[in-house]
Amino acid sequence: MKTRIFVTLKGGVLDPQGKAIHHALESLGFSGVNDVRAGKLIELDLAETVTDGEIEEMCKKLLANTVIENYRIERGA
Amino acid sequence: MKTRIFVTLKGGVLDPQGKAIHHALESLGFSGVNDVRAGKLIELDLAETVTDGEIEEMCKKLLANTVIENYRIERGA
Repeated sequence: MKTRIFVTLKGGVLDPQGKAIHHALESLGFSGVNDVRAGKLIELDLAETVTDGEIEEMCKKLLANTVIENYRIERGA
Repeated sequence: MKTRIFVTLKGGVLDPQGKAIHHALESLGFSGVNDVRAGKLIELDLAETVTDGEIEEMCKKLLANTVIENYRIERGA
């Protein structure tokens, strides 16, 4: 079973990687870019026996730093 | 307008970051994890005037390395 975890920085947290991408896009001549935020996408291939609670635990213990990051779990078929 | 770009490694490409996450999950006692792949999520806040073609160009020129990575564009409201 494929499960995707989206990890994004919380609102007020500075994002130097996003800033660098924003700057690079402008240097390449792309206009109309207001803001860029960089995050992570982690794709897990899990056994059917893994529960939603376990996936939450994985996020809290390892995949996301909940002090500065939000995560969203998208459980696949 | 929020647009999300999902950048993932192509099938045959080795993913040391994913392997490290996989190993760490097992060390923490999580079982039932068959595979882990790490990717990027880039959130763009774009002006309404930016076309789909321009977003494709951004991906090809900067956001994804199309030799080893796939990208998917999810255009928001």
